[in-house]
Amino acid sequence: MFRHVVVFTWTSESTPEQREGALAALRQWGEDCREYGTLTLGVDAGLAEGNGNAVVVVDLPDRETYAAYAADERHLAALRDHVRPILERRCAVQHEL
Amino acid sequence: MFRHVVVFTWTSESTPEQREGALAALRQWGEDCREYGTLTLGVDAGLAEGNGNAVVVVDLPDRETYAAYAADERHLAALRDHVRPILERRCAVQHEL
Repeated sequence: MFRHVVVFTWTSESTPEQREGALAALRQWGEDCREYGTLTLGVDAGLAEGNGNAVVVVDLPDRETYAAYAADERHLAALRDHVRPILERRCAVQHEL
Repeated sequence: MFRHVVVFTWTSESTPEQREGALAALRQWGEDCREYGTLTLGVDAGLAEGNGNAVVVVDLPDRETYAAYAADERHLAALRDHVRPILERRCAVQHEL
């Protein structure tokens, strides 16, 4: 198995509507990407200063499937249209499970 | 269920031995923390520029168990003695699963 993890931190000036739009796009992609693997989206519970705002953990069969996942036009569109416009910081790791 | 995710990025000047020491301490804590939940440690596969170096995903029964996990002296020691000395950046989110 192969795992992709990314923590998103939104810009301080992003609006609640923009943030909800990004989460909605990620949720939709989570539905669309079932052909590749299982995506779990979490919104930070606010327990610690300096935390990110949301995290995606995606479990896939292998590294090759991750490459197809990452290149999928629906994935690229969700990032381009909804996530990147309000993205302050992105912390990611991909690893063998 | 409650999830804790943290992406670690090591300082550029940290040595391979220090990095392996941090991973070993996290692996040991992964064994010790079974009383709280399940910890998965992953080392970045090097697929993308700007990625973190390692990620920990911990799944726990609830938020209260996470608080006990976080306060455990063995956890604090692993961070203090092995992780923080070589830590460039830390991106974390905790959320309901």
